[in-house]
Amino acid sequence: MISVDKALQIVLKNGKRLLPKKVKLENAAGLCLAEDIKSDLNMPPFNRSAMDGYAVIASDINPPVDLEVIENIRAGYNPKKKVGRGQSAKIMTGSVVPKGADAVIKVEETKPLDNDRKVRILKGTKKGANIARKGEDVRVGNVVLRKGTRIRAQEAGILAAVGAGNVKAYSTPSIGIISTGDELVEITRKPKPWQIRNSNSYSLAAQARQIVPDVEILGRVNDNEKEIMKLIKRGLRKDILILSGGVSMGEFDLVGGVLQDIGVKIFFEKVALRPGKPTVFGKKGDKLVFALPGNPVSTFVTFELFVKPCIKKMMGFTSYGHPIMHAELEREIKIRKKRREYRPALLSQAGSGWKVSLVDWHGSGDLFSTTKANCLLIVRESVEKLNAGDMVEVMLIDGLNVF
Amino acid sequence: MISVDKALQIVLKNGKRLLPKKVKLENAAGLCLAEDIKSDLNMPPFNRSAMDGYAVIASDINPPVDLEVIENIRAGYNPKKKVGRGQSAKIMTGSVVPKGADAVIKVEETKPLDNDRKVRILKGTKKGANIARKGEDVRVGNVVLRKGTRIRAQEAGILAAVGAGNVKAYSTPSIGIISTGDELVEITRKPKPWQIRNSNSYSLAAQARQIVPDVEILGRVNDNEKEIMKLIKRGLRKDILILSGGVSMGEFDLVGGVLQDIGVKIFFEKVALRPGKPTVFGKKGDKLVFALPGNPVSTFVTFELFVKPCIKKMMGFTSYGHPIMHAELEREIKIRKKRREYRPALLSQAGSGWKVSLVDWHGSGDLFSTTKANCLLIVRESVEKLNAGDMVEVMLIDGLNVF
Repeated sequence: MISVDKALQIVLKNGKRLLPKKVKLENAAGLCLAEDIKSDLNMPPFNRSAMDGYAVIASDINPPVDLEVIENIRAGYNPKKKVGRGQSAKIMTGSVVPKGADAVIKVEETKPLDNDRKVRILKGTKKGANIARKGEDVRVGNVVLRKGTRIRAQEAGILAAVGAGNVKAYSTPSIGIISTGDELVEITRKPKPWQIRNSNSYSLAAQARQIVPDVEILGRVNDNEKEIMKLIKRGLRKDILILSGGVSMGEFDLVGGVLQDIGVKIFFEKVALRPGKPTVFGKKGDKLVFALPGNPVSTFVTFELFVKPCIKKMMGFTSYGHPIMHAELEREIKIRKKRREYRPALLSQAGSGWKVSLVDWHGSGDLFSTTKANCLLIVRESVEKLNAGDMVEVMLIDGLNVF
Repeated sequence: MISVDKALQIVLKNGKRLLPKKVKLENAAGLCLAEDIKSDLNMPPFNRSAMDGYAVIASDINPPVDLEVIENIRAGYNPKKKVGRGQSAKIMTGSVVPKGADAVIKVEETKPLDNDRKVRILKGTKKGANIARKGEDVRVGNVVLRKGTRIRAQEAGILAAVGAGNVKAYSTPSIGIISTGDELVEITRKPKPWQIRNSNSYSLAAQARQIVPDVEILGRVNDNEKEIMKLIKRGLRKDILILSGGVSMGEFDLVGGVLQDIGVKIFFEKVALRPGKPTVFGKKGDKLVFALPGNPVSTFVTFELFVKPCIKKMMGFTSYGHPIMHAELEREIKIRKKRREYRPALLSQAGSGWKVSLVDWHGSGDLFSTTKANCLLIVRESVEKLNAGDMVEVMLIDGLNVF
C-alpha cells in the first residue's frame, strides 16, 4: 500500500505530454500552446485615441480656446494632415492620432462651432492624455504567449489579434471507459432486486468530458475472464483506459489478473486512501490503465485524484492539481486514521471567509451524497482529531461553484 | 447612465428561461434539469456487503470461532440459503447479504479452513457491521434531483442509477457574434498600419463556448448602415445577438441607431462602469441584443458582467453571478471614482488566505494584460481609497484557476 502522494507521483511520471497538432483557433480554447506566440505587430499599432474628441497640441490649450478643425478621423482611416498650432482634428475612439497632435480632448469637454469647421476647447489637457501609445502593450516580435499557456478566452483574443488563426497545441488524450461486474445492468433496464444499474460509466464520462472531448463509454462486462480481456484489448486503443469495479480482494474481481495476463505493467494496486483503497494503475506501451474501485464515490474520488491530473499533464498543463482552499469546519469529524481521507463536503461563504461541513453520507456506495457536495474535505494521515472551528483543507472539484 | 446592479437586473428580467427539451444523458452534463427526478428503486436495492468477507450472525461470534460456510455469494447473484447459528456465507463487496446474517466480517479477519467449507473468525463484530442497509441512501419514489439542478458528473451518475437515460433539461440559447468597425480586418489578413485584426469575435466566442455550444461568429462589418442592418437582421435569428464596437459617442458609431431603426427596444445604453461604459442592451420579440463596447477589455468584462449571467438564467440556472472572494490587496490602487471598476487582477494563495494585485495594464484597449489575470478586482462606487493590506472583493471569471 502506497501513499496518495507517491501514487500521484508515479501516475504523473508515466503520463507523458502528447504530441502537438495544428488546431484552428475556434477549436483551441481549453488546450495548451505547444509553441511560443510572437506578435507580428505593435499593440496598439499606432498612437490610438482612447476617446471620441479632438486631437490637439497639449501646450496649445489655454481654455477656453477656439481651434480650427482640419480633418475628421474615424477608426480604420489613415489621417492625411498634420495638426499645427491653432489646429485640431476631430477623432473617434480607436482611430489614429494624426501627426503633430499629442493629446486628445474628450468630446464632452468641447463645443463645436461654425458648422464643425471650428471647435471650442473648454478644459485644459496634458501631453499624452487619452492616447494609447504605439507599441505600449506589445511590440513587434515580443512573445505574447508562452509555450504551455492554457488558451482561455483572453488568450483566444490575443491569438486572433496577432493573426494566429491556426495554432500548435498539445493533443488531448482519448479516453475509454469500461465497467465490470455481474451485478451491473444497462441503464435502460430495470435491475433485478440483486442488481444495480451501471452508473459509474456515466459519472466517469461526465468527469472526463469536463476536460477532454474524446471520451467513449465502451460498455459493461460480466465477471468473466474472456469477456473482460476482449473489452480491455479494445480499450487499449485509447490513450487512457479507465475501468471501474473488479479490483478489490473478492474472488470474482478478475480485472487485476487479466491486466497482468495481457501484459499491462502494474505500478500500484492499493493506495492509503479512503474512499478508494483498491486503486490500480498500470501501463502497456504508451497506453495508461486506471482500474478504479467500483463503489461510485470511490470511483468519483479516485478519478479526480489520479486520472484528472494525469490528463492535464498529457495535455501540456504546467500545474495539474485541483485548487485547495482553507475553510472553517462547522461540525467535528470522527477520524478513522491510517489512510488519508477525501470526504464529500459542502463549502460556503461565511463573511469574508469560508466554512465547510461534511455532507451526510453512508459510505463509498452512496453517490447520492456527492450531489450535495461541492468539494472534498481532506483529512491528512497525521491528523488525530478535527473539531468544529478548526481550519481544514478542501479540494475544489467543480471550479468554485458555491451553493 | 445607470448602475451596474440596475443594468444587470434589467438584463435578467428580460432573459427568460428557455423551453425544456429531451436530452440523452450522455449529452446532458452542464445543463439544468427541467423536471424532478424520482428514484425507481431503493439505494442500495438490498442489504449490501461493503467488504469482501463472511456474512454472519453478529451475536454468534465469540472469537476465535469456526463457522460452516454454506454459500459463496458474489455480486450480481441472488443468495439461495438462510444463514443460521454456527453458519456463515462467503460474500464479495457489493453482494446481497443473505437472510439470517446481520454482519459481515472482513476477509482479513478470517482464516479459511477445510478447503473453504469452514472459516475461522478471528475478531468480534456487531450487528450491521460492513452492511449498507437497503434504502439507506435513497428510497423508491424519493426525489433524488430537483428541477433546476445543474447536471455535474455526480448528477450524471445518479441519473444513470435511476435509469434516466433521457432527461428533460432546459435548452441553451443560440448565440451570434458580430464585430463592427472600419478599422477591423479578418484575422488571416495583415492589417494596414491604421487597422487592427478582429480579435473581439474570437474572445467573445471563447467566453460563450465556456457555457453553451451553439455559438456562431457571424463576421465583421464596416461602419456602414446598410451592411450593419443586414448582418444584425441575420443575427436576430439567434436567441442572443452580441455586437462589439460601434456604441460610443463617435459619429461613425452607427450600431445604436440601426438597432432602433430595426425595432429593437433599447433598455439602456450607458452603465456607470469602468471599463465598459457604452454598453447597450435591447430586445426585439424574444431576441436579446447586447451591443458591447469595442475596446477588447471592455468587451471581455461586459460579457462576463451582463451576458454570461443572462445565458445562465436562460439555461435554467438558479444563481447567475460569478463567485466573489475576498483577498488582501498587495499594492495600493488609485481610485478614479464615480463609476464602479472591474480591473484585471491576479489572485494567488498566501498561507491560508488570498492576496491580489492588479495586473499591469494600459487601459481598456490592452487585452494582453488580461492574459496575466485570473480575476476582476471590484472597486465599488463608494470606495475612496484602497491601500496595500486592505481586504478587497474579487470576481472569479475562470473558475478558480490560481496561477
